[in-house]
This record gives sequence, C-alpha cells and structure tokens, in this order.
Amino acid sequence: MAERKVSGSTGEILRAIREGRAQTRADLAGLTGLGRSTVAQRVGSLIASGLVIEAGDGESTGGRPPTVLAFNAGAGVVLAADLGATHCRLEVTDLGGAALAVHQQELDIEDGPDKVLTRVREAFADLLVEAGRAVADVRGIGVGVPGPVEWAHGRPVSPPIMRGWDGVSIPAAFAGWSDAPVFVDNDVNIMVLAEHRSVWRDLSQLLLVKVGTGIGCGIIVAGEVYRGAQGSAGDIGHIRVSGHDDVVCRCGNVACLEAIAGGGAMAAALRRQGLDADNSRDVVDLARGGVPEAVQLVRQAGRLLGEVLASAVNLFNPAVIVIAGDVAQAHEPLLAGVREVVYRRSPPLATQHLRIVRGQLGERTGTIGAALTAIEGVLSDAAVERAVATRGT
Amino acid sequence: MAERKVSGSTGEILRAIREGRAQTRADLAGLTGLGRSTVAQRVGSLIASGLVIEAGDGESTGGRPPTVLAFNAGAGVVLAADLGATHCRLEVTDLGGAALAVHQQELDIEDGPDKVLTRVREAFADLLVEAGRAVADVRGIGVGVPGPVEWAHGRPVSPPIMRGWDGVSIPAAFAGWSDAPVFVDNDVNIMVLAEHRSVWRDLSQLLLVKVGTGIGCGIIVAGEVYRGAQGSAGDIGHIRVSGHDDVVCRCGNVACLEAIAGGGAMAAALRRQGLDADNSRDVVDLARGGVPEAVQLVRQAGRLLGEVLASAVNLFNPAVIVIAGDVAQAHEPLLAGVREVVYRRSPPLATQHLRIVRGQLGERTGTIGAALTAIEGVLSDAAVERAVATRGT
Repeated sequence: MAERKVSGSTGEILRAIREGRAQTRADLAGLTGLGRSTVAQRVGSLIASGLVIEAGDGESTGGRPPTVLAFNAGAGVVLAADLGATHCRLEVTDLGGAALAVHQQELDIEDGPDKVLTRVREAFADLLVEAGRAVADVRGIGVGVPGPVEWAHGRPVSPPIMRGWDGVSIPAAFAGWSDAPVFVDNDVNIMVLAEHRSVWRDLSQLLLVKVGTGIGCGIIVAGEVYRGAQGSAGDIGHIRVSGHDDVVCRCGNVACLEAIAGGGAMAAALRRQGLDADNSRDVVDLARGGVPEAVQLVRQAGRLLGEVLASAVNLFNPAVIVIAGDVAQAHEPLLAGVREVVYRRSPPLATQHLRIVRGQLGERTGTIGAALTAIEGVLSDAAVERAVATRGT
Repeated sequence: MAERKVSGSTGEILRAIREGRAQTRADLAGLTGLGRSTVAQRVGSLIASGLVIEAGDGESTGGRPPTVLAFNAGAGVVLAADLGATHCRLEVTDLGGAALAVHQQELDIEDGPDKVLTRVREAFADLLVEAGRAVADVRGIGVGVPGPVEWAHGRPVSPPIMRGWDGVSIPAAFAGWSDAPVFVDNDVNIMVLAEHRSVWRDLSQLLLVKVGTGIGCGIIVAGEVYRGAQGSAGDIGHIRVSGHDDVVCRCGNVACLEAIAGGGAMAAALRRQGLDADNSRDVVDLARGGVPEAVQLVRQAGRLLGEVLASAVNLFNPAVIVIAGDVAQAHEPLLAGVREVVYRRSPPLATQHLRIVRGQLGERTGTIGAALTAIEGVLSDAAVERAVATRGT
C-alpha cells in the first residue's frame, strides 16, 4: 500500500500508534511535521481518554530514553455479530479485534428482525458477563447481514433472503441498552475487510467472493471498502453467464450466476439427480465425500464463477482474489474451475501476478470483519476528535 | 464527493485555494486547524513560488478586510499531447488547463517513437512560440497514448496497436529540451480524468468507455484514476461476449468485445457487405448518413457493449457512465443499444439513478486530460513541498 498520509490530527496520531508506525512522541513529530508541544498535547489527550498508554522506556539515542507509547486494546470492547441465513456467530472482542467470548447458534434470519435482534442482544449480554465486562465498556457494535444495506443508516434495502427486514433500522434494536454506535454492513463487505486487514494489508485493492447459498463480492480499493454509488457494488451473483438462458433467477432475469452456481441452486440440482442435499453445506459434504455428481457440479460452478471473475479481472486488475464462504470449503474443485477460466480468459498483464486463494480466517471471517468495522468506525478521525473533546470538558 | 480531508501541508493549502474551498488565510486556518502563523508562513512560501497571488481585499466582517488569495494559473504552462492511432492533438495550456495554443495533425503512431516524439517535440516548440512562452516556463508535460502504460516510468507495455513502442521511455524523448516532469498515461485514463474534473467533480466514482478503433474503459474511484495492480484496470475490450465464439480476436482469444463491437471490427464487417469503410470514422459517417447496415451494426455493437457494462454496473455500481470516442459520435444507435441492455440486465438498486451519457468535452477530451494529468502531478503535495523548499533556499 502506498504510504498513508499522516495529517497530524488526534485520530491519525492514534492510528500511527495502533499500526506500529510510531512508538514515541519523537516518531510522531517526525511523521506529522507537527511541533513537539502539539504532539505532546494530542498524545496527552489520547492518554487521558484511555486509548493510549505509556508502555515503558524505549532505547536511548544518547539522552533520557524516550517513553514508548502503545495502543490500549483493553480500553473498551466491541460486540460483533455475523448473521447468516440460518446461523449466527457473535463475539465480544477487545479494540484490537481479539475474541474475548464467542457464541454460535442456529438462527433463521427469516424469523424477522424483532426475534433475531432480541436474541442477539440477549446473547451479547451473556457474552459480556462471560468476558467480565459491562455494557458501559462497549465502544461499538458491528453487525454483518446477508443482504444489501444502506450503510449510513444501518438498514437492509430490499434484501432477497431477509423477509421482513426491508428498511428496518438495525441500530434502533440496541438503543436503550447500549449507547455505543452501531455499524451495519453486507456480509461480503465485512468479510473483505477482515481478510484485508488480517492477511493482505499491504495491498491497496482486494476482491473477496463469497460462495454460499448465494454469491456476492466484497471490494477493497485504496485500502477501504468500496460500496459504489448506491451501496450495491460487488453484486456479481446476478451477472449473466453464457449458455444458461433457460434458467430463471429469483431476481426475474435469466442465466444469473447465482441461479446456477450458488450453493442453493447446486443443492436443488443434486436433488433433481436423486441425491440428498438441502443446502450449500450438503453440497460441500457430498463434494468432499467424492460423490462424482457433486464434484462435477462444483467444478462447473467454479468455471461459471471464473467466467464472471475473468471480466472482473479485466475491469479491476486485482493482485489477489479471495474465495470464501461455505462452498469454498469444497475448495479443490471450485478453485480449479475458477482458475481454469480466469487464467484462460483474462489478459496476460492482469494475470501475470494474480493469485486466486481461499480465505484464511475460516469461521471467524464474519465476526472479525464486524468487529473491525465497528473498531474502525469508533476510532475514525472524527470519532476520536469527538471522544477526546468530550473527555476534555 | 465526501469532503476531502485537509492535512494542512503546503500542497493541500494550494489545492484548497485552487479548488475555491478557501479564499483567505482565515479560511485556511479554519479548514486545516493549523495556527494562523503556520498558515501565514505556508501561504508566504506559495506566494514566493508564484503559484498563489494576493488578489485584493475580501469582504470585511468588522475589522480590516482580509486579503483574498487566488491560484495563479499563469505561473507556468503545461504541454499536453493526445496521441491517437493515426492522429494527434497538442496543446499549450496554463496551470488551470485553459488552452493557449493548439495544433492537430495526422500522425501514424506506428511510425514509431523516434519519428513521432521528435515531431511532437518540434510542434511543442512551435506552440510555445505561438503562445509567447519559453521552454523554461514549462512546468510539466502530459502525454496520452493508445495503449497500456507503466505509469511510474512512462513506458508503453506490450501495446497492441503501437508497434515499436514496447518498453520505450517516453519521458526520455524530452530530456535535454525541457527538464519539466513528464507524465504518460493510457488514453482512457486521461479521458476519464478530463471528464471527471470538468463535468463530474462531485462524483467520487466514474466510468468512461472509449469506443474508437478499439474499446477501453477509464475508471475514477475516490476521485482519482484507478489503475489496478499492474495498471491494466479497465481493459474491457477483451471481455468475452455471448454468441460470437467464431470470432477470433487479435489477442488470441475468441469473442472479445472489441473484435466485434470496436470501430475497426465494424469497418471490416461493412466492407464484407460491400460498403466503403476503412476505419471507425467511416463507420460513424455511414451510420449518421442513415445507411441501414451501419445503423444496425452500431446498435448491435451498443448491445454487446451494454452486456459488458451490465456486468461492470453489478460490480462497480457507478452513478454515471460516460461513452466517448469516435464511435460515440454516432451516439443515438450506440447509446440506445447500451441503455437497452444495461437497464434490462443490471439490478434495480444499481440502475435506479444510473445515467449513461455521451462525453461532454469533444475533441479536447484527450488534451484536457493530458494537461490535467501533468498539472495534478506538478501540483501534488510532494511536488509542491519540493518546489517551495527549492525556492526557499
């Protein structure tokens, strides 16, 4: 990643300390170009807020050894929820994203927002007890959902598999219980953030494709989640693939990628062949078990996904594409199909150094992403300025 | 566009003045949070460098009226070259991008870099005389070429229609004549920069599709040109379209968009029907003249382009797509075809506010973009810091 500009604001100073780019007040003065007294004053306010601690003496370069500054990941906690179609995972994490307590359960998103969010809030309360922290310690709440979200207000927008959630304010469900800010995003956006920050931080751009019941894509550009003009960027599940004009998608169009290569569509195809497959996990189990129909189907799904990703590579020229989600667990045939088509169809300059890899974070991908979404929100420049100003009065 | 953060560096202060976001030293102090003495010192160095002038008194809010600061677009000139396959346009502009002198001529890019760049340098020298400026006034040189470019070094990389240019340093051709920095980019990147800065500045993202002999796409994300990992982002001419697997492209793949819908391919198709069409301009002339074969061909090309752009809309969710280049001059049938497919195939959320429009800048698009590429390069943060430091010694 190109070196990030450091403006010298209190939030940027905190970020430089968090990311290990500065360890002392002198480092910060060098990095920002600010005078030592301004740096000292801003660091002082961060120490007063509890977000930065003095962690002992560094190495002397002659005179008195400088004090080493460190980010205090224990200054608060974050609540992270990864809500899938039928399953949820919840975590309490510290401000560095480390899990302090974890809960998983089956939970049908189509039970609707009242039931689902009440259950989430109750489980969060139990997890806080387990982690030995109070609701007052919660600095932020991050929630990932399996559908498009109006980011500014945390509201799902016409989500195809979340009946009853259209336009519902998810932050409102936590009002009165915690006054921490709530950040809600599409599952693929939180997943790509997790993989980027944890594994691929040096890349300025990244694509993450989730292949589960449906298919979607999260995008990082210039180090940040790219959402597009209406927040629908990455909606690759409804791109048309060739040779399937007889397949009608639930969106009303024909030959959508998801209607053929999604886990739900593949399970239906296997049922038509007399196999027992209810959902994408069953497809994966059959493929991993070596059932030829399933292996072939997953590989063919990989080829169709490859066709769509070849176009994405032409347009986007990423250095890495991460394949994640349930069906990516059946990784060999899926990734083989993807690679086969992408490397054949995309231009040499774009594929020369292109890597197509499986996600590295496993079942924690969603909660890490939800936690990081909240952490980056509450430690943003503007939020830190506000927090410091409040403590200062 | 989200409000740009202002770090308070000298380059950022200059940008705030150039873009009209600050008119006085007090505005700048408010915008940056810097103390008045720091602002005064940085503005002083910009005035000493000639880039900022004091333009008289502003409105008083009680006491002494504040001095209005203005960007001095006359502090230097920029040389801009838009090199096409068979034609070039050259301009001398001021630092605001206004043309001071213009030259156009037929020039075959495949005459090779020696001949072409010698001609460009001679024509630039003549234009400077015409504009009444000296080579020493040149602050930067911007060059657009019809092929992929390694941006950092200004070298074409395996360009398909620029025989003899592969790996040639374009900046080296100006060494010894002018010591101004030279910025070289792909034609679609300079075109999208021109349209964005001149027409769509408020949008944070923009796609511009050039339909000429070939087909390519320039991309703006977060207000800047997006190049991808290897600089090949936007290479949509080689995305596969459906139903044309019998068409072999010069790239070696089959069914590439450009091999069917590019101006060169359309001219060949018209020749096969007995019509007189050498190149994309002839295709446009025939279509505008109402020749049914040409009108039908251009509309069908629009549909195929629409197929590719529908995928781009799913992935990218732009607010505006600009269609430019020779063939866009035959705009009615081309845009009709594009719109027909994009609005049918892309998801409602992404097309709800999507506009597909023709380029607004006409034949100046390339030179405006080349000039702006150079201007933004020489007025970048780092470059301004260097310039100010040099003058200060």
